[in-house]
Amino acid sequence: MRKLLLLSTSVLQNGKYLDYASDVIKAFFAENGVSKIVFIPYAAHDHDAYEKKVKDAFLEFGLELNSIHKSDNLMATVKEAQGFFVGGGNTFLLLKTLYDLNLLEAIKSRVLQDGIPYMGSSAGTNLATVNICTTNDMPIVHPPTLDAFGFLPFNINPHYLDHDPTSKHMGESRETRLSEYHDIPNAKSPPVLGLREGSWLQVKDDQILLKGSISNQTARLFVRGQQTKEHEVNSDLSFLLKM
Amino acid sequence: MRKLLLLSTSVLQNGKYLDYASDVIKAFFAENGVSKIVFIPYAAHDHDAYEKKVKDAFLEFGLELNSIHKSDNLMATVKEAQGFFVGGGNTFLLLKTLYDLNLLEAIKSRVLQDGIPYMGSSAGTNLATVNICTTNDMPIVHPPTLDAFGFLPFNINPHYLDHDPTSKHMGESRETRLSEYHDIPNAKSPPVLGLREGSWLQVKDDQILLKGSISNQTARLFVRGQQTKEHEVNSDLSFLLKM
Repeated sequence: MRKLLLLSTSVLQNGKYLDYASDVIKAFFAENGVSKIVFIPYAAHDHDAYEKKVKDAFLEFGLELNSIHKSDNLMATVKEAQGFFVGGGNTFLLLKTLYDLNLLEAIKSRVLQDGIPYMGSSAGTNLATVNICTTNDMPIVHPPTLDAFGFLPFNINPHYLDHDPTSKHMGESRETRLSEYHDIPNAKSPPVLGLREGSWLQVKDDQILLKGSISNQTARLFVRGQQTKEHEVNSDLSFLLKM
Repeated sequence: MRKLLLLSTSVLQNGKYLDYASDVIKAFFAENGVSKIVFIPYAAHDHDAYEKKVKDAFLEFGLELNSIHKSDNLMATVKEAQGFFVGGGNTFLLLKTLYDLNLLEAIKSRVLQDGIPYMGSSAGTNLATVNICTTNDMPIVHPPTLDAFGFLPFNINPHYLDHDPTSKHMGESRETRLSEYHDIPNAKSPPVLGLREGSWLQVKDDQILLKGSISNQTARLFVRGQQTKEHEVNSDLSFLLKM
Protein backbone atom coordinates (compact mmCIF):
# COMPACT_ATOMS: atom_id res chain seq x y z
CA MET A 1 0.00 0.00 0.00
CA ARG A 2 1.15 3.53 -0.64
CA LYS A 3 -0.67 6.84 -0.90
CA LEU A 4 1.85 9.53 -1.73
CA LEU A 5 1.80 13.15 -2.87
CA LEU A 6 5.35 14.22 -3.68
CA LEU A 7 5.97 17.85 -4.62
CA SER A 8 9.16 19.15 -6.19
CA THR A 9 8.86 22.42 -4.32
CA SER A 10 6.74 24.11 -1.66
CA VAL A 11 6.47 27.49 -3.34
CA LEU A 12 6.59 28.97 -6.84
CA GLN A 13 8.19 32.31 -7.69
CA ASN A 14 6.34 35.18 -5.98
CA GLY A 15 3.87 32.67 -4.59
CA LYS A 16 2.48 31.90 -1.15
CA TYR A 17 3.62 28.76 0.68
CA LEU A 18 2.04 25.66 -0.98
CA ASP A 19 -0.54 27.88 -2.66
CA TYR A 20 0.02 26.58 -6.21
CA ALA A 21 -0.87 23.06 -5.09
CA SER A 22 -3.69 23.85 -2.64
CA ASP A 23 -6.43 22.03 -4.58
CA VAL A 24 -4.30 18.93 -4.97
CA ILE A 25 -3.38 18.88 -1.29
CA LYS A 26 -7.01 19.29 -0.22
CA ALA A 27 -8.13 16.50 -2.57
CA PHE A 28 -5.31 14.18 -1.49
CA PHE A 29 -6.21 14.33 2.18
CA ALA A 30 -9.99 14.47 1.60
CA GLU A 31 -10.13 11.34 -0.55
CA ASN A 32 -8.26 9.50 2.17
CA GLY A 33 -10.57 10.81 4.91
CA VAL A 34 -7.79 12.74 6.66
CA SER A 35 -8.54 16.00 8.46
CA LYS A 36 -5.64 16.08 10.92
CA ILE A 37 -2.04 15.87 9.79
CA VAL A 38 1.21 15.20 11.62
CA PHE A 39 3.95 17.55 10.40
CA ILE A 40 7.61 16.51 10.34
CA PRO A 41 9.67 19.74 10.67
CA TYR A 42 13.18 18.29 10.98
CA ALA A 43 14.55 19.56 7.65
CA ALA A 44 14.76 23.00 9.27
CA HIS A 45 16.49 24.19 12.43
CA ASP A 46 13.66 26.30 13.89
CA HIS A 47 10.80 23.84 14.37
CA ASP A 48 8.44 26.33 16.04
CA ALA A 49 8.70 28.87 13.23
CA TYR A 50 8.37 26.14 10.61
CA GLU A 51 5.26 24.70 12.25
CA LYS A 52 3.61 28.12 12.34
CA LYS A 53 4.15 28.73 8.63
CA VAL A 54 2.82 25.32 7.63
CA LYS A 55 -0.04 25.32 10.13
CA ASP A 56 -1.30 28.65 8.76
CA ALA A 57 -1.24 27.37 5.18
CA PHE A 58 -3.05 24.15 6.10
CA LEU A 59 -5.66 26.07 8.10
CA GLU A 60 -6.54 27.93 4.91
CA PHE A 61 -7.00 24.52 3.26
CA GLY A 62 -9.39 23.58 6.10
CA LEU A 63 -6.94 21.07 7.57
CA GLU A 64 -5.56 20.76 11.08
CA LEU A 65 -1.83 20.21 11.28
CA ASN A 66 0.43 19.75 14.30
CA SER A 67 4.16 19.36 14.37
CA ILE A 68 5.55 16.21 15.92
CA HIS A 69 8.31 18.14 17.71
CA LYS A 70 5.75 19.32 20.30
CA SER A 71 4.63 15.80 21.14
CA ASP A 72 5.81 14.29 24.43
CA ASN A 73 5.49 10.80 22.95
CA LEU A 74 6.82 10.74 19.40
CA MET A 75 6.13 7.05 18.83
CA ALA A 76 2.51 7.36 19.95
CA THR A 77 2.06 10.38 17.69
CA VAL A 78 3.33 8.39 14.72
CA LYS A 79 1.16 5.38 15.62
CA GLU A 80 -1.98 7.53 15.87
CA ALA A 81 -1.30 9.70 12.82
CA GLN A 82 -3.96 9.90 10.11
CA GLY A 83 -1.53 11.47 7.62
CA PHE A 84 1.99 12.91 7.36
CA PHE A 85 3.50 15.96 5.76
CA VAL A 86 7.30 16.07 5.60
CA GLY A 87 8.44 19.59 4.70
CA GLY A 88 11.49 20.74 2.76
CA GLY A 89 14.75 22.23 3.97
CA ASN A 90 18.02 20.36 4.39
CA THR A 91 17.71 16.68 3.44
CA PHE A 92 20.74 15.55 5.47
CA LEU A 93 19.41 17.24 8.59
CA LEU A 94 15.98 15.70 8.04
CA LEU A 95 17.31 12.17 7.56
CA LYS A 96 19.80 12.35 10.43
CA THR A 97 17.16 13.63 12.85
CA LEU A 98 14.72 10.86 11.90
CA TYR A 99 17.45 8.28 12.55
CA ASP A 100 18.47 9.98 15.81
CA LEU A 101 14.86 9.89 17.04
CA ASN A 102 14.26 6.33 15.79
CA LEU A 103 11.37 7.59 13.68
CA LEU A 104 12.38 6.36 10.24
CA GLU A 105 11.17 2.78 10.58
CA ALA A 106 8.08 3.85 12.54
CA ILE A 107 6.85 6.26 9.85
CA LYS A 108 7.84 3.87 7.07
CA SER A 109 5.75 1.12 8.57
CA ARG A 110 2.73 3.40 9.00
CA VAL A 111 2.83 4.37 5.34
CA LEU A 112 3.66 0.99 3.79
CA GLN A 113 1.84 -1.36 6.19
CA ASP A 114 -1.07 0.79 7.34
CA GLY A 115 -1.59 2.84 4.16
CA ILE A 116 -1.35 6.21 5.92
CA PRO A 117 -1.11 9.07 3.35
CA TYR A 118 2.30 10.74 3.05
CA MET A 119 2.84 14.15 1.53
CA GLY A 120 6.38 15.39 0.93
CA SER A 121 7.88 18.53 -0.49
CA SER A 122 11.46 18.88 -1.72
CA ALA A 123 13.55 17.18 1.03
CA GLY A 124 10.36 15.36 2.08
CA THR A 125 10.09 14.07 -1.49
CA ASN A 126 13.72 12.91 -1.47
CA LEU A 127 12.96 10.99 1.72
CA ALA A 128 10.11 9.07 0.09
CA THR A 129 12.52 7.43 -2.35
CA VAL A 130 15.14 4.75 -1.99
CA ASN A 131 17.86 7.07 -0.64
CA ILE A 132 18.96 10.73 -0.55
CA CYS A 133 21.82 10.29 -3.05
CA THR A 134 20.16 12.74 -5.45
CA THR A 135 19.43 15.62 -3.08
CA ASN A 136 20.68 19.08 -4.04
CA ASP A 137 21.44 20.00 -0.44
CA MET A 138 24.71 20.51 1.37
CA PRO A 139 25.86 17.81 3.80
CA ILE A 140 25.76 20.11 6.84
CA VAL A 141 25.39 17.03 9.07
CA HIS A 142 26.28 13.35 8.57
CA PRO A 143 23.45 10.79 8.76
CA PRO A 144 24.43 7.18 9.62
CA THR A 145 23.35 6.05 6.13
CA LEU A 146 21.83 7.66 3.05
CA ASP A 147 18.97 5.13 2.93
CA ALA A 148 15.55 6.74 3.17
CA PHE A 149 11.92 5.55 3.44
CA GLY A 150 12.01 3.67 0.15
CA PHE A 151 8.30 4.08 -0.61
CA LEU A 152 9.43 4.20 -4.24
CA PRO A 153 12.27 2.04 -5.65
CA PHE A 154 13.83 4.88 -7.65
CA ASN A 155 15.29 8.35 -6.94
CA ILE A 156 13.82 11.80 -7.42
CA ASN A 157 15.79 14.98 -7.97
CA PRO A 158 13.53 17.83 -6.82
CA HIS A 159 13.90 21.39 -8.16
CA TYR A 160 15.32 19.84 -11.33
CA LEU A 161 17.13 22.55 -13.25
CA ASP A 162 18.19 22.66 -16.89
CA HIS A 163 21.71 23.72 -17.73
CA ASP A 164 22.01 27.38 -18.73
CA PRO A 165 24.43 27.41 -21.70
CA THR A 166 25.05 31.15 -21.25
CA SER A 167 26.26 30.76 -17.67
CA LYS A 168 29.91 31.42 -16.76
CA HIS A 169 29.55 29.13 -13.81
CA MET A 170 31.74 26.08 -14.31
CA GLY A 171 30.47 23.90 -11.48
CA GLU A 172 28.81 20.69 -12.62
CA SER A 173 25.34 20.95 -14.19
CA ARG A 174 22.51 18.98 -12.59
CA GLU A 175 22.70 16.58 -15.54
CA THR A 176 26.41 15.95 -14.95
CA ARG A 177 25.83 15.35 -11.25
CA LEU A 178 23.11 12.80 -11.96
CA SER A 179 25.32 11.09 -14.56
CA GLU A 180 28.00 10.69 -11.87
CA TYR A 181 25.43 8.77 -9.82
CA HIS A 182 24.75 6.40 -12.70
CA ASP A 183 28.40 6.05 -13.65
CA ILE A 184 29.44 4.39 -10.38
CA PRO A 185 31.08 1.15 -11.52
CA ASN A 186 29.50 -2.16 -10.43
CA ALA A 187 26.56 -0.38 -8.78
CA LYS A 188 22.85 -0.70 -9.42
CA SER A 189 21.98 2.97 -9.09
CA PRO A 190 18.23 3.12 -9.81
CA PRO A 191 16.51 5.55 -12.22
CA VAL A 192 16.27 9.22 -11.20
CA LEU A 193 13.28 11.38 -12.05
CA GLY A 194 14.20 15.07 -12.41
CA LEU A 195 11.07 16.83 -11.14
CA ARG A 196 10.91 20.46 -12.22
CA GLU A 197 9.46 23.31 -10.14
CA GLY A 198 5.65 23.18 -9.98
CA SER A 199 5.31 19.48 -10.74
CA TRP A 200 4.59 16.51 -8.49
CA LEU A 201 3.85 12.79 -8.35
CA GLN A 202 0.53 11.29 -7.24
CA VAL A 203 1.05 7.72 -6.15
CA LYS A 204 -1.74 5.29 -5.29
CA ASP A 205 -0.52 1.75 -4.66
CA ASP A 206 0.96 0.70 -8.02
CA GLN A 207 -0.04 3.76 -10.02
CA ILE A 208 2.24 6.79 -10.41
CA LEU A 209 0.95 9.87 -12.19
CA LEU A 210 3.11 12.85 -13.10
CA LYS A 211 1.21 16.09 -12.54
CA GLY A 212 2.03 19.79 -12.68
CA SER A 213 0.72 23.31 -12.46
CA ILE A 214 2.66 24.59 -15.47
CA SER A 215 1.34 23.63 -18.92
CA ASN A 216 3.55 21.68 -21.35
CA GLN A 217 6.02 20.92 -18.58
CA THR A 218 7.95 17.68 -18.60
CA ALA A 219 10.00 15.69 -16.12
CA ARG A 220 13.38 14.27 -17.13
CA LEU A 221 14.08 10.60 -16.53
CA PHE A 222 17.66 9.36 -16.07
CA VAL A 223 18.21 5.62 -16.38
CA ARG A 224 21.63 4.03 -15.95
CA GLY A 225 23.14 3.25 -19.34
CA GLN A 226 20.33 4.90 -21.33
CA GLN A 227 19.64 8.26 -22.97
CA THR A 228 17.66 10.63 -20.77
CA LYS A 229 13.99 11.01 -21.70
CA GLU A 230 11.38 13.71 -21.11
CA HIS A 231 7.92 12.68 -19.86
CA GLU A 232 4.97 15.05 -20.15
CA VAL A 233 2.78 16.13 -17.27
CA ASN A 234 -0.21 13.73 -16.94
CA SER A 235 1.96 10.77 -18.00
CA ASP A 236 1.56 7.46 -16.24
CA LEU A 237 4.96 6.59 -14.78
CA SER A 238 3.88 3.36 -13.08
CA PHE A 239 6.49 1.49 -15.14
CA LEU A 240 9.10 2.95 -12.77
CA LEU A 241 7.90 0.51 -10.11
CA LYS A 242 9.04 -2.40 -12.28
CA MET A 243 12.45 -1.19 -13.50
CA MET B 1 54.00 23.63 7.82
CA ARG B 2 51.66 23.95 4.87
CA LYS B 3 52.19 24.85 1.23
CA LEU B 4 48.85 24.92 -0.50
CA LEU B 5 47.44 26.11 -3.81
CA LEU B 6 43.66 25.81 -3.70
CA LEU B 7 41.70 26.60 -6.86
CA SER B 8 37.94 27.14 -6.99
CA THR B 9 37.73 25.53 -10.41
CA SER B 10 39.91 23.72 -12.94
CA VAL B 11 38.61 25.47 -16.02
CA LEU B 12 37.05 28.80 -16.98
CA GLN B 13 34.31 29.20 -19.60
CA ASN B 14 35.59 28.23 -23.07
CA GLY B 15 39.02 27.62 -21.55
CA LYS B 16 41.49 24.75 -21.63
CA TYR B 17 41.97 22.58 -18.55
CA LEU B 18 43.88 24.57 -15.84
CA ASP B 19 45.04 27.02 -18.51
CA TYR B 20 43.91 30.19 -16.68
CA ALA B 21 46.15 29.33 -13.72
CA SER B 22 49.15 27.88 -15.58
CA ASP B 23 51.64 30.54 -14.41
CA VAL B 24 50.55 30.17 -10.81
CA ILE B 25 50.79 26.38 -10.92
CA LYS B 26 54.26 26.50 -12.49
CA ALA B 27 55.48 29.01 -9.90
CA PHE B 28 53.95 27.05 -7.00
CA PHE B 29 55.79 23.84 -7.83
CA ALA B 30 58.99 25.58 -8.99
CA GLU B 31 59.48 27.58 -5.80
CA ASN B 32 59.13 24.36 -3.84
CA GLY B 33 61.60 22.52 -6.08
CA VAL B 34 59.00 20.03 -7.32
CA SER B 35 59.19 18.65 -10.86
CA LYS B 36 57.24 15.40 -10.40
CA ILE B 37 53.73 15.34 -9.02
CA VAL B 38 51.50 12.58 -7.68
CA PHE B 39 47.94 12.95 -8.97
CA ILE B 40 44.94 11.83 -6.92
CA PRO B 41 42.17 10.96 -9.44
CA TYR B 42 39.53 9.54 -7.10
CA ALA B 43 36.94 12.31 -7.51
CA ALA B 44 36.14 10.79 -10.92
CA HIS B 45 35.11 7.28 -11.92
CA ASP B 46 37.44 6.83 -14.92
CA HIS B 47 40.95 7.19 -13.46
CA ASP B 48 42.80 6.41 -16.69
CA ALA B 49 40.95 9.07 -18.69
CA TYR B 50 41.34 11.58 -15.89
CA GLU B 51 45.08 10.96 -15.61
CA LYS B 52 45.54 11.47 -19.35
CA LYS B 53 43.79 14.85 -19.32
CA VAL B 54 45.76 16.12 -16.35
CA LYS B 55 49.09 14.63 -17.47
CA ASP B 56 48.80 16.41 -20.83
CA ALA B 57 48.10 19.76 -19.17
CA PHE B 58 51.02 19.38 -16.74
CA LEU B 59 53.37 18.34 -19.55
CA GLU B 60 52.66 21.70 -21.18
CA PHE B 61 53.65 23.31 -17.87
CA GLY B 62 56.93 21.34 -18.00
CA LEU B 63 55.90 19.12 -15.10
CA GLU B 64 55.77 15.35 -14.84
CA LEU B 65 52.61 13.97 -13.27
CA ASN B 66 51.57 10.39 -12.56
CA SER B 67 48.33 9.15 -11.10
CA ILE B 68 48.48 7.16 -7.90
CA HIS B 69 45.91 4.65 -9.15
CA LYS B 70 48.61 3.01 -11.33
CA SER B 71 50.96 2.48 -8.39
CA ASP B 72 51.32 -1.05 -7.02
CA ASN B 73 52.27 0.37 -3.62
CA LEU B 74 50.06 3.30 -2.75
CA MET B 75 51.67 3.96 0.61
CA ALA B 76 55.20 4.04 -0.86
CA THR B 77 53.99 6.42 -3.58
CA VAL B 78 52.61 8.79 -0.96
CA LYS B 79 55.76 8.55 1.16
CA GLU B 80 58.02 9.33 -1.81
CA ALA B 81 55.84 12.07 -3.32
CA GLN B 82 57.40 15.50 -3.94
CA GLY B 83 53.99 17.12 -4.43
CA PHE B 84 50.30 16.31 -4.74
CA PHE B 85 47.50 17.44 -7.03
CA VAL B 86 43.99 16.42 -6.02
CA GLY B 87 41.61 17.00 -8.93
CA GLY B 88 37.92 17.93 -8.92
CA GLY B 89 34.85 15.82 -9.52
CA ASN B 90 32.60 14.34 -6.87
CA THR B 91 33.76 15.24 -3.34
CA PHE B 92 31.93 12.35 -1.65
CA LEU B 93 33.51 9.83 -4.01
CA LEU B 94 36.95 11.38 -3.47
CA LEU B 95 36.71 11.33 0.33
CA LYS B 96 35.22 7.84 0.53
CA THR B 97 37.91 6.39 -1.75
CA LEU B 98 40.70 7.98 0.30
CA TYR B 99 39.21 6.45 3.46
CA ASP B 100 38.70 3.07 1.76
CA LEU B 101 42.36 3.02 0.65
CA ASN B 102 43.65 4.31 4.00
CA LEU B 103 45.27 7.24 2.23
CA LEU B 104 43.76 10.16 4.12
CA GLU B 105 46.07 10.12 7.13
CA ALA B 106 49.10 9.27 4.98
CA ILE B 107 48.67 12.26 2.66
CA LYS B 108 47.72 14.53 5.56
CA SER B 109 50.91 13.68 7.40
CA ARG B 110 53.07 14.28 4.30
CA VAL B 111 51.60 17.76 3.84
CA LEU B 112 51.45 18.88 7.49
CA GLN B 113 54.53 17.12 8.90
CA ASP B 114 56.83 17.00 5.88
CA GLY B 115 55.75 20.22 4.17
CA ILE B 116 54.98 18.57 0.81
CA PRO B 117 53.13 21.00 -1.51
CA TYR B 118 49.43 20.27 -2.09
CA MET B 119 47.44 21.63 -4.98
CA GLY B 120 43.69 21.12 -5.08
CA SER B 121 40.95 22.09 -7.46
CA SER B 122 37.23 22.16 -6.62
CA ALA B 123 36.67 18.84 -4.73
CA GLY B 124 40.43 18.79 -4.03
CA THR B 125 40.04 22.23 -2.47
CA ASN B 126 37.11 21.09 -0.33
CA LEU B 127 39.30 18.25 0.90
CA ALA B 128 42.03 20.61 2.11
CA THR B 129 39.65 22.12 4.64
CA VAL B 130 38.20 20.89 7.90
CA ASN B 131 35.40 18.83 6.31
CA ILE B 132 33.30 18.48 3.15
CA CYS B 133 30.14 19.96 4.68
CA THR B 134 30.18 22.82 2.16
CA THR B 135 30.64 20.87 -1.06
CA ASN B 136 28.16 21.48 -3.88
CA ASP B 137 28.23 17.86 -4.97
CA MET B 138 25.61 15.14 -4.72
CA PRO B 139 26.10 12.40 -2.12
CA ILE B 140 26.37 9.60 -4.70
CA VAL B 141 28.30 7.52 -2.15
CA HIS B 142 28.49 7.62 1.67
CA PRO B 143 31.90 8.27 3.26
CA PRO B 144 32.38 7.03 6.86
CA THR B 145 32.70 10.65 8.05
CA LEU B 146 32.69 14.10 6.45
CA ASP B 147 36.04 15.04 8.06
CA ALA B 148 38.71 15.92 5.51
CA PHE B 149 42.45 16.76 5.58
CA GLY B 150 42.01 19.81 7.78
CA PHE B 151 45.02 21.71 6.41
CA LEU B 152 42.90 24.79 7.07
CA PRO B 153 40.60 25.19 10.08
CA PHE B 154 37.71 26.68 8.08
CA ASN B 155 35.53 25.66 5.13
CA ILE B 156 35.65 26.64 1.48
CA ASN B 157 32.72 26.65 -0.91
CA PRO B 158 34.22 26.33 -4.41
CA HIS B 159 32.39 27.59 -7.53
CA TYR B 160 30.68 30.13 -5.26
CA LEU B 161 27.64 31.45 -7.06
CA ASP B 162 25.59 34.58 -6.44
CA HIS B 163 21.82 34.30 -6.35
CA ASP B 164 20.14 35.26 -9.60
CA PRO B 165 17.08 37.33 -8.59
CA THR B 166 15.49 36.80 -12.03
CA SER B 167 15.55 33.01 -11.75
CA LYS B 168 12.30 31.04 -11.41
CA HIS B 169 14.20 28.28 -9.69
CA MET B 170 13.02 27.98 -6.10
CA GLY B 171 15.66 25.64 -4.74
CA GLU B 172 17.82 27.17 -2.02
CA SER B 173 20.44 29.73 -3.09
CA ARG B 174 24.06 29.07 -2.22
CA GLU B 175 23.79 31.72 0.47
CA THR B 176 20.80 30.00 2.06
CA ARG B 177 22.58 26.64 2.02
CA LEU B 178 25.63 28.11 3.75
CA SER B 179 23.40 29.83 6.32
CA GLU B 180 21.88 26.44 7.15
CA TYR B 181 25.39 25.23 8.00
CA HIS B 182 25.91 28.13 10.39
CA ASP B 183 22.43 27.89 11.89
CA ILE B 184 22.95 24.40 13.36
CA PRO B 185 22.15 24.89 17.06
CA ASN B 186 24.92 24.24 19.59
CA ALA B 187 27.52 23.64 16.87
CA LYS B 188 30.79 25.39 16.20
CA SER B 189 30.53 25.46 12.41
CA PRO B 190 33.67 27.33 11.28
CA PRO B 191 33.78 30.21 8.77
CA VAL B 192 33.14 29.42 5.10
CA LEU B 193 34.94 31.21 2.28
CA GLY B 194 32.84 31.35 -0.91
CA LEU B 195 35.50 31.17 -3.64
CA ARG B 196 34.21 32.36 -7.00
CA GLU B 197 35.27 30.90 -10.39
CA GLY B 198 38.80 31.94 -11.37
CA SER B 199 40.02 32.66 -7.86
CA TRP B 200 42.25 30.66 -5.51
CA LEU B 201 44.10 30.66 -2.21
CA GLN B 202 47.90 30.61 -1.88
CA VAL B 203 48.85 29.32 1.55
CA LYS B 204 52.39 29.31 2.94
CA ASP B 205 52.56 28.25 6.57
CA ASP B 206 50.58 30.96 8.40
CA GLN B 207 49.95 33.24 5.45
CA ILE B 208 46.83 32.97 3.28
CA LEU B 209 46.54 35.14 0.18
CA LEU B 210 43.38 35.41 -1.91
CA LYS B 211 44.27 35.56 -5.60
CA GLY B 212 42.33 35.52 -8.86
CA SER B 213 42.50 35.83 -12.62
CA ILE B 214 39.47 38.11 -12.91
CA SER B 215 39.98 41.76 -11.96
CA ASN B 216 37.88 43.33 -9.18
CA GLN B 217 36.67 39.92 -8.09
CA THR B 218 35.92 39.25 -4.45
CA ALA B 219 35.40 36.20 -2.25
CA ARG B 220 32.49 36.06 0.18
CA LEU B 221 33.16 35.19 3.80
CA PHE B 222 30.44 33.61 5.95
CA VAL B 223 31.01 33.64 9.70
CA ARG B 224 28.55 32.12 12.14
CA GLY B 225 26.42 34.86 13.72
CA GLN B 226 27.88 37.67 11.59
CA GLN B 227 26.98 39.51 8.40
CA THR B 228 28.69 38.11 5.30
CA LYS B 229 31.62 40.14 4.00
CA GLU B 230 33.32 40.47 0.61
CA HIS B 231 37.13 40.33 0.45
CA GLU B 232 38.98 41.58 -2.61
CA VAL B 233 41.46 39.57 -4.62
CA ASN B 234 45.01 40.12 -3.23
CA SER B 235 43.66 40.37 0.31
CA ASP B 236 45.56 38.75 3.14
CA LEU B 237 43.18 36.27 4.76
CA SER B 238 45.66 34.91 7.32
CA PHE B 239 43.28 36.00 10.10
CA LEU B 240 41.14 32.97 9.17
CA LEU B 241 43.75 30.76 10.83
CA LYS B 242 42.99 32.38 14.17
CA MET B 243 39.19 32.50 14.13
